[in-house]
Amino acid sequence: MPHKTLVIGGGAAGIGAAGGVKAADPRNDVVVYTEFEDVGYSPCGIPYVHGKEIDSFEALFLAQKEAYVQAGIDVRYETRVSSIDLLRKVVDVAGEGEVHWDRLVIATGFDYADPGVPGGDLDGLYYVKNIRRAMEWDKVLDTVKTAVVVHATPLGLEMTTALAQRGIETHLIDPQPWALAEMVDPDIIAPVQESWVEMGVNLHFNTTLKSFNGARALTSVGTSDGEIPADLAVICTHKQPNITLAAEAGLKAGATGGLIVDERMATSAPDVYAAGDCAELPHGLTRVGVSGLTGSHAYAQGKVAGFNAGGGTKRYQPVYVPWGTPAGKWVIGGASFGETLATALGIPFVVGRAEGISRARYYPGVKPIKIKLLAEPGQLRLIGAQMVGQEGIKERADFLATAVKFGLTLHDLAAMENVYSPAIGALNEPIVLAAQNGVENASGGG
Amino acid sequence: MPHKTLVIGGGAAGIGAAGGVKAADPRNDVVVYTEFEDVGYSPCGIPYVHGKEIDSFEALFLAQKEAYVQAGIDVRYETRVSSIDLLRKVVDVAGEGEVHWDRLVIATGFDYADPGVPGGDLDGLYYVKNIRRAMEWDKVLDTVKTAVVVHATPLGLEMTTALAQRGIETHLIDPQPWALAEMVDPDIIAPVQESWVEMGVNLHFNTTLKSFNGARALTSVGTSDGEIPADLAVICTHKQPNITLAAEAGLKAGATGGLIVDERMATSAPDVYAAGDCAELPHGLTRVGVSGLTGSHAYAQGKVAGFNAGGGTKRYQPVYVPWGTPAGKWVIGGASFGETLATALGIPFVVGRAEGISRARYYPGVKPIKIKLLAEPGQLRLIGAQMVGQEGIKERADFLATAVKFGLTLHDLAAMENVYSPAIGALNEPIVLAAQNGVENASGGG
Repeated sequence: MPHKTLVIGGGAAGIGAAGGVKAADPRNDVVVYTEFEDVGYSPCGIPYVHGKEIDSFEALFLAQKEAYVQAGIDVRYETRVSSIDLLRKVVDVAGEGEVHWDRLVIATGFDYADPGVPGGDLDGLYYVKNIRRAMEWDKVLDTVKTAVVVHATPLGLEMTTALAQRGIETHLIDPQPWALAEMVDPDIIAPVQESWVEMGVNLHFNTTLKSFNGARALTSVGTSDGEIPADLAVICTHKQPNITLAAEAGLKAGATGGLIVDERMATSAPDVYAAGDCAELPHGLTRVGVSGLTGSHAYAQGKVAGFNAGGGTKRYQPVYVPWGTPAGKWVIGGASFGETLATALGIPFVVGRAEGISRARYYPGVKPIKIKLLAEPGQLRLIGAQMVGQEGIKERADFLATAVKFGLTLHDLAAMENVYSPAIGALNEPIVLAAQNGVENASGGG
Repeated sequence: MPHKTLVIGGGAAGIGAAGGVKAADPRNDVVVYTEFEDVGYSPCGIPYVHGKEIDSFEALFLAQKEAYVQAGIDVRYETRVSSIDLLRKVVDVAGEGEVHWDRLVIATGFDYADPGVPGGDLDGLYYVKNIRRAMEWDKVLDTVKTAVVVHATPLGLEMTTALAQRGIETHLIDPQPWALAEMVDPDIIAPVQESWVEMGVNLHFNTTLKSFNGARALTSVGTSDGEIPADLAVICTHKQPNITLAAEAGLKAGATGGLIVDERMATSAPDVYAAGDCAELPHGLTRVGVSGLTGSHAYAQGKVAGFNAGGGTKRYQPVYVPWGTPAGKWVIGGASFGETLATALGIPFVVGRAEGISRARYYPGVKPIKIKLLAEPGQLRLIGAQMVGQEGIKERADFLATAVKFGLTLHDLAAMENVYSPAIGALNEPIVLAAQNGVENASGGG
């Protein structure tokens, strides 16, 4: 029997969910509510338009609004859902009143953590999220002399690089001793930080944000490292699951602040699902909850949530978190744990390291790649990897996350076959070299 | 107790073996005999120098001769071994007489299959192998108007592309209906062949070589498709294991013509090992012997053979054959079986296909990638993959060969997490899309 499913949120998770509902049964009704003017664009591309690597914001739209109509997905733009009633199975929609649902998918995404300092209402504070606002801000960037990026999160890295490429005097402030310190090890981020300095970026680590200063518009940013004159602050604080509506309705959240879901992406309430940045998923190795993953994760979770809401059965598996991003003049990436995080979690490990190359040593365009593998002592089961290089980081991160998931060991990776062809791969695959080094280290040889 | 190991052959396998002997015990004596003037260079780079992608042949040398001396490896250049006596444990060396060995490693590589047609002794027939000859031939190429590449083997693909890039009128002849037909499927090679045509290459498939014609120098190549006027023929026939010496000594060979070795790379005779193109290794899925793999395989096999010869214990594992190469304007690659080979071997399979992209759809430099996954019906265990694209082919081929080896299924790959970051990876990883398609096809949905 077809259901009526409401989806709250029009990001990757919400759009994935709407498609999932229809995939389960095309007769299902599905309505997507979004506060914004658009759905189905790539917010992840915004920093790259600001950095002039992508020509226009128009390129970021994936589909015309008409495409959703044709797919039978009813999108209500600029429409706010103000409350959820779990017992009566209705939501309160601005301008529509109470709307009944058989199934509900919550895909309300994230908010940037409140910087929590004076001056948060000044002009000149930019939260990168909505594409229409980004188009307006992009014009502002033409007039900006000096910008401060608040916190070296993944978005902070992208915006720092983008603003510097755009020729804006850029300051990066972060309370940690190095960029992305919660997930990346210092030896991996070091070349990135050096390249930012080459690009003219001013790095302020171990530095706390104190205030945004100015009369009406920002004129400086106060920090524990002194006052930085600036006419723009880009707020790239930690992504917090946006669960206000869901929490008011009584849905349960986990330690990260994301909604707790089971493997069907079902929340603590019957017939209510959640997906994307507002949900919390178990890490495959520790079963500890994680949230705030990528658009690819959000989309995949949305599809599972929507498919189940629509009457089907699909499972979303625990995450092993392959990740990667350009930063400065490098690309960094990895899977699961680095040394910093493993140490913080009290997980013992053996390390294998290598400095390899992406093509034959003599082939034009060959790039260095530094790779580090972490494994459980004893069996040497892989538990994580980190890399810095320029080519093939994403593909290796995908591979290594899968290798962690399926229990491959450093012995397995040390004996791995690899393509050798001068223009596309080196005689010795860097992963193999790092695994061999790890095996040596584990046997007391290193 | 240290041993004296002789290595016959100075290619990747021979040099790997010499290093392996020393790694097992630095007190071991090791002597490498090579017929050539050099060791430790990359013959795989030669086509790319001819194609002007690499500036000079000098770049292909990996180490100075002095480096081998310092590593305690005694290399005897331009020195031919004329026979092996297994019982008396001696070899007969031109200019040295009988030389005793405790352990012997045979790394005699391959020969191109004899084209077996009249005119094989004419000037103008180029066998790509030795770097000194390649340097001489590179000067000849400046004067060549028209070249015929004989057979669309991996080297044939590289040489066709290189000669066309160099502006030489290039003909490719092959008796099969498409290039690399023994390993690559027609849908994968199709864009490559189209790009060759764009580059001005004349393709002659289903075409048999009949003769090389001319008085002293080549003036034309006779084929079943007619006579092709040409002043150069590049002989890129099938690589045959070069086991003349070993066979005369009584060592056993397998169906491919390569020496049979066990997992220690030990041959049928005590204390005699073999590695590289002269050896035959079992395929991991079929246990059928294969030979003529890459320099990376040869080097790894050499290290195992040498380590065992030197008194250590290492095992070389069955192969799952990741492969990849640029060809025309594309890069092709894969792992284990394609449809053509699986069909020929009578292996049943299910196929999943996808046309994906290498970066976000809107990110500059994004390239298409077509991918095909083969799996056993039922459990959908991966048995092979083929790809054509431009970025990330080598890394995906390495991954997919490992996925075949460790028994991953299309279900596993369909649920794989992937990095999403616009500049380096798309929202949907092409491997995941192909796996999802395969799962649908297997359930009767496609």
